[in-house]
Amino acid sequence: MHPFDQALQLQPLGDGAYQAETSPDYANMVGPFGGITSAVLLNAALQHPDKLGQPVALTVNFVAPIADGAYTVTARAARTNRSTQHWVIEARQATGVVALATAVFATRRTTWSAAEAQAPQDLPPPEQLTRMPTGKRPPWVRFYDMRFTEGDVFSGFDGQEYPDSRSCQWLRDDPPRPLDFPALASISDCFFPRIFLRRRRVAPIGTVSMTTYFHADAAALAAQGDRYLIGTARGLKFHNGFFDQSGEMWSHDGHLLASTHQTVYFKE
Amino acid sequence: MHPFDQALQLQPLGDGAYQAETSPDYANMVGPFGGITSAVLLNAALQHPDKLGQPVALTVNFVAPIADGAYTVTARAARTNRSTQHWVIEARQATGVVALATAVFATRRTTWSAAEAQAPQDLPPPEQLTRMPTGKRPPWVRFYDMRFTEGDVFSGFDGQEYPDSRSCQWLRDDPPRPLDFPALASISDCFFPRIFLRRRRVAPIGTVSMTTYFHADAAALAAQGDRYLIGTARGLKFHNGFFDQSGEMWSHDGHLLASTHQTVYFKE
Repeated sequence: MHPFDQALQLQPLGDGAYQAETSPDYANMVGPFGGITSAVLLNAALQHPDKLGQPVALTVNFVAPIADGAYTVTARAARTNRSTQHWVIEARQATGVVALATAVFATRRTTWSAAEAQAPQDLPPPEQLTRMPTGKRPPWVRFYDMRFTEGDVFSGFDGQEYPDSRSCQWLRDDPPRPLDFPALASISDCFFPRIFLRRRRVAPIGTVSMTTYFHADAAALAAQGDRYLIGTARGLKFHNGFFDQSGEMWSHDGHLLASTHQTVYFKE
Repeated sequence: MHPFDQALQLQPLGDGAYQAETSPDYANMVGPFGGITSAVLLNAALQHPDKLGQPVALTVNFVAPIADGAYTVTARAARTNRSTQHWVIEARQATGVVALATAVFATRRTTWSAAEAQAPQDLPPPEQLTRMPTGKRPPWVRFYDMRFTEGDVFSGFDGQEYPDSRSCQWLRDDPPRPLDFPALASISDCFFPRIFLRRRRVAPIGTVSMTTYFHADAAALAAQGDRYLIGTARGLKFHNGFFDQSGEMWSHDGHLLASTHQTVYFKE
């Protein structure tokens, strides 16, 4: 079984409740990688017998560090309309709530459609780029193959302030795995904290809230398969303990699959 | 009393529950303007005796149309940490849940800070621009004074498809009112649906989820007062029933006060 699928596993406890287990593979500095927590919470709604349609929006609030071991995830459809469904999802440990999510699911119909944002052009193919070393990084980084064309943060840690936080990279699960909604939710949290790019050093940070919009439907996920995605990201403002960052996940051939936003606590 | 403050009013029912009332002033095509609903939900946490610090993130899911009249808002602090607090806020009518929000509050400390995104430069002052007419628009539009420098959508409805959805405008409450967090939450929903800009016609739409990050602290709000803000917005993708849009709210002198993102249902 792929380590990602292992980490996603949920044991149904009835009434929309599931038991989950933290994965040593997707561990971060403190507690799990936020992407895997997002994927597990989304998965609780995806597994729920009342599920309608596909995810279009997911917000995860990282309430408290999740301790290694078991936790409970409860998914509740607060309302099911004709074509949309609104979820509240909570993760709990003995200490109380540790993560909170809302999700919107919908049945999509064919409508007028148009791209506005454009994927980066003329990137060298991933095979011509060097993979980011994962040696001194937290465990989860080993399970993503990342190849930067811009903003390869860890290679430039000179402590000199840098004027922008843009990055552009190829990335995919390692080992490769066909893209699905949990994987897209997780990989949308792969953008390293923008403050590392601005300050060119590591510092204590923690995402407090992350929102992902899924532009991909099931057909777009199938067309992507296990190929490399393109990821682009940047921050807008860093101010008194919090900064934001936004990113886009593009398919191998330049279609926007997800856009993602987060606000992140930082210490100093 | 300012119509916005009237619309914000909450009668405490005890245990974090409040009675709210829809405002005919801030009505939209169907139900209330999403901005006012966001402000009311945020206000329930702001009024709560357990409140810690200031809002840094707010996500509102618009679950079902809110019928004219009374509704109940319940705010619950799911977790209070040393410097952050996580809220779940629900609005209900007899039909069930009508809106759902999560919010993150925090006490901010002085840290390294930096702007990355830059406000639009060299805009003509609002006094030199014409106010957008509000005559044939829904009621809420009358309570915002909007002056466009780009993307004045309603003036260009020729039904011809347009390649981008960018807009730039001055805007403020009308009558002018000193900016606070509820007002900033509300005004962040003032960006007209990007699909109107792309297709140059009105069509049935409804925001399903909106997330706002507050970069402003109380000092930045006080410095803004009741002056005009600058608002910039654009969409990334329109696909099979949903599109996203993102916007920034800048102070009169170019500081980023909030960034906002939403995903919107559209019909055809």
